[in-house]
Amino acid sequence: MTVPDVADLVDRARRYEPRAVARLISLVEDASPQLREVAAALAPLTGRAQVIGLTGPPGVGKSTSTSALVTSLRAQGKRVGVLAVDPSSPFSGGALLGDRIRMQQHATDPGVFIRSMATRGHLGGLSWATPQALRVLDAAGFDVVLVETVGVGQSEVDVVSLADTTIVLLAPGMGDGIQAAKAGILEIADVFVVNKADRDGAEATVRDLKNMVAMSRRGVAGSSWRQPIVPTVASTMDGVDDVVKAIETHHQWLVEHDELGQRRYRRARAEVEAIALESVRAKLGGPGEDALRRLSERVSAGEIDPYTAADRLVEGISGG
Amino acid sequence: MTVPDVADLVDRARRYEPRAVARLISLVEDASPQLREVAAALAPLTGRAQVIGLTGPPGVGKSTSTSALVTSLRAQGKRVGVLAVDPSSPFSGGALLGDRIRMQQHATDPGVFIRSMATRGHLGGLSWATPQALRVLDAAGFDVVLVETVGVGQSEVDVVSLADTTIVLLAPGMGDGIQAAKAGILEIADVFVVNKADRDGAEATVRDLKNMVAMSRRGVAGSSWRQPIVPTVASTMDGVDDVVKAIETHHQWLVEHDELGQRRYRRARAEVEAIALESVRAKLGGPGEDALRRLSERVSAGEIDPYTAADRLVEGISGG
Repeated sequence: MTVPDVADLVDRARRYEPRAVARLISLVEDASPQLREVAAALAPLTGRAQVIGLTGPPGVGKSTSTSALVTSLRAQGKRVGVLAVDPSSPFSGGALLGDRIRMQQHATDPGVFIRSMATRGHLGGLSWATPQALRVLDAAGFDVVLVETVGVGQSEVDVVSLADTTIVLLAPGMGDGIQAAKAGILEIADVFVVNKADRDGAEATVRDLKNMVAMSRRGVAGSSWRQPIVPTVASTMDGVDDVVKAIETHHQWLVEHDELGQRRYRRARAEVEAIALESVRAKLGGPGEDALRRLSERVSAGEIDPYTAADRLVEGISGG
Repeated sequence: MTVPDVADLVDRARRYEPRAVARLISLVEDASPQLREVAAALAPLTGRAQVIGLTGPPGVGKSTSTSALVTSLRAQGKRVGVLAVDPSSPFSGGALLGDRIRMQQHATDPGVFIRSMATRGHLGGLSWATPQALRVLDAAGFDVVLVETVGVGQSEVDVVSLADTTIVLLAPGMGDGIQAAKAGILEIADVFVVNKADRDGAEATVRDLKNMVAMSRRGVAGSSWRQPIVPTVASTMDGVDDVVKAIETHHQWLVEHDELGQRRYRRARAEVEAIALESVRAKLGGPGEDALRRLSERVSAGEIDPYTAADRLVEGISGG
């Protein structure tokens, strides 16, 4: 493959050429030699897109909901990017491929760009490639970027560090898991969506969430945002426009309370930190490889403990 | 709480006093001031325990199987430690608490020590506290340590970097997800267990796995280990002794093929690397905090890109 002309790619991405957008994302995702050139070209063009995180436990209809949100946002004339984050799990990887197929109704719409992101690397979660892909979509001029995570492990917490607004999707009949996880869900959600609201138990789920949000008012200080609870049937578009309205209301609140800048600072900070750590990790495997191998052998033999080994390793890198 | 006498705690842990074991694990898990002292005291005592990783998708009966394996190993007179790793997920956290209750049949057995490990921190997965807790159990003299992970996200891959033998649990009727994930499962399993083998579809699942293993023989070079497939009904102990035998056979194979040392080196290396990165991360939040904030603000404003920011940050740390 020829060396890409980054300036030309960026120009074409800003004219929404899907192949240019895809190529730029590949350049950042694969940590290509042009990565830094791409990052530098994108930086001044970023900061305009509204970033929506969407997460929830398996089985609540995340991909159907993402697809429905895209439909609703497109009806408003907004250009929408979707980053669907698959953890590199042998188990969940396959199931998600099936979900992706449901998104194909948007495949021929030039105002929609959909990308499945593999998570990879020791730093895991969203920390590595996803924020860079988000920068590409932001710089290309997409109005909204939806980041969908599978909602297991660390990813639903990490999505919060990326998003302006985090949507937590639930469904009726999720049972005790949800009950026990109340505190965690409460912390990360800006908007609750109860999908499959035509099913038995939907009212109870909405009521439980309402009680939870009401109780947390008394306990949690510092935020005047009251998390709305929106019932939907994503497969028939019922309630989906209400979700889009709730996102807009939250966005207004962020702007009015000077929170949007805070959230975007937090996102930038998480990015810088992740890249710095990845760069140190690369040094461990490169110039530090000999030392790492020698020290690990001594740890394996019980001669030294891993903390002493790590201290010597970090000293070695700092010295070089 | 008084400052613990580490040498005394280690002595008592080696006499299998559960409170001493628990206290040592807390000291390493909470990154206490005594962490390095504990690590240094444990190092010369480690390297004897057999480490078994157990993973699989949700719903296959991991906790029931873990409990059954403990019963079988105890019948052989072996002391068994269990580290059950919950990712710090708001969603999965709650459900796992229920599973833990099934383990209570072992709660009064002094030859069994069970600990639920929260995963935490930016480095995620098993990389941080679990290997240190494993060192405590190893040094305390437990013959076998079972590390059970929930099998979502990165954790089932990380367990491989810890274990001498990795068991992948499946169950009949898991459907397309398993089919699609074949390649991933094949890479990490040393032993396959098909649990709930009394259910419809068990034979088909065993047959599918057999075909998969047979086909991979022709494709995968370098290893003469043929992954056995063991059907079980963990809730009635059916087949569980066969799993223990398969583990033993694999252990013999590791020893005979000089693979055990390689796996333990790999474990030590993953530990040292994770600790070194965590130490760098601590520096970012400590002495590097001012620089990180300033650079992140500039990234947030679009003045510089995150790679340039990260480079300057790492230079700053190395210089200090």
